[in-house]
Amino acid sequence: MRKLKYHVASTVDGFIAHEDHSIDGFVSEGEHVIDYLESLKHDYDIVLMGRRTYEFGFQFGVTSPYPWMKQYVFSRTMERSPDPNVELVSKEITGFVEGLKKGAGKDIYLCGGADLAGKLFAEGLVDEIILKLNPVVFGSGIPLFSGVVKQADLELTGSKVYGNGVVLLNYRVKD
Amino acid sequence: MRKLKYHVASTVDGFIAHEDHSIDGFVSEGEHVIDYLESLKHDYDIVLMGRRTYEFGFQFGVTSPYPWMKQYVFSRTMERSPDPNVELVSKEITGFVEGLKKGAGKDIYLCGGADLAGKLFAEGLVDEIILKLNPVVFGSGIPLFSGVVKQADLELTGSKVYGNGVVLLNYRVKD
Repeated sequence: MRKLKYHVASTVDGFIAHEDHSIDGFVSEGEHVIDYLESLKHDYDIVLMGRRTYEFGFQFGVTSPYPWMKQYVFSRTMERSPDPNVELVSKEITGFVEGLKKGAGKDIYLCGGADLAGKLFAEGLVDEIILKLNPVVFGSGIPLFSGVVKQADLELTGSKVYGNGVVLLNYRVKD
Repeated sequence: MRKLKYHVASTVDGFIAHEDHSIDGFVSEGEHVIDYLESLKHDYDIVLMGRRTYEFGFQFGVTSPYPWMKQYVFSRTMERSPDPNVELVSKEITGFVEGLKKGAGKDIYLCGGADLAGKLFAEGLVDEIILKLNPVVFGSGIPLFSGVVKQADLELTGSKVYGNGVVLLNYRVKD
């Protein structure tokens, strides 16, 4: 069974982006980026994106951000996917993701955003959180999870401290 | 000059307490607690508390939580301090804390809550954040900082990973 991993950068005060979805302030260079890209290439073959997370790339001309993976964008308002390599999912999320998890293959990369992550976490579908904790305070922004999320205990399964102050933290979501 | 250190436990999603100020879910036993108590004894001789943080102890009959320090509670609504060992500060916070920082002695322990921390952080008076990152998601609660806080870069100056999954992270607030 595939695991669903919420692999995301966060500030020390728990934000994954500014209110406008920009990420100025996150450390954009260094060994942690190399590790992250390696992980994306080797650990996952499916990526799940919320609509706003996906559309954030449009300003850079990116409509197929992870072409080596099967890419899904979740939205009830998009009419069609703007890229043939990205599949629009407008039906009920929970059952769809449960189906993906039952398939064979590598793990599933949940890259955000907060609404999608909050919904999947609340449904108990997120197996791991991989947090790239950046040495910055935003003060406001998009939280790690949006919506109604119940308390959940985690197990720290790994950690790595980078010279640039980024801390990678691997957590398993306890049942 | 004394440093003001915001030394606080947080969830992975950036909350320092539940909405009702309770902290069920934080790891309450282990080596990190010993380190924390040692730090409280040796590193600080002044503690700053917001009113609600201070009053949270009342349910346990605690009105002088850090008797070995000079204790200040900040409130505009309290009429008098309920304990002779705790001094009520109802005047303007910024100048008062600036004055404390100019004095001689050990560092100043900012134990919370979010309103007080947010105000002092926004004013540039917080020198360090010492985060006890607990392996738990609350989903909602009291954030690390309340109020209008501008983005600030931090420098990771130390870290310690405990066997129980708590991660201690020391940050210096960059100018």
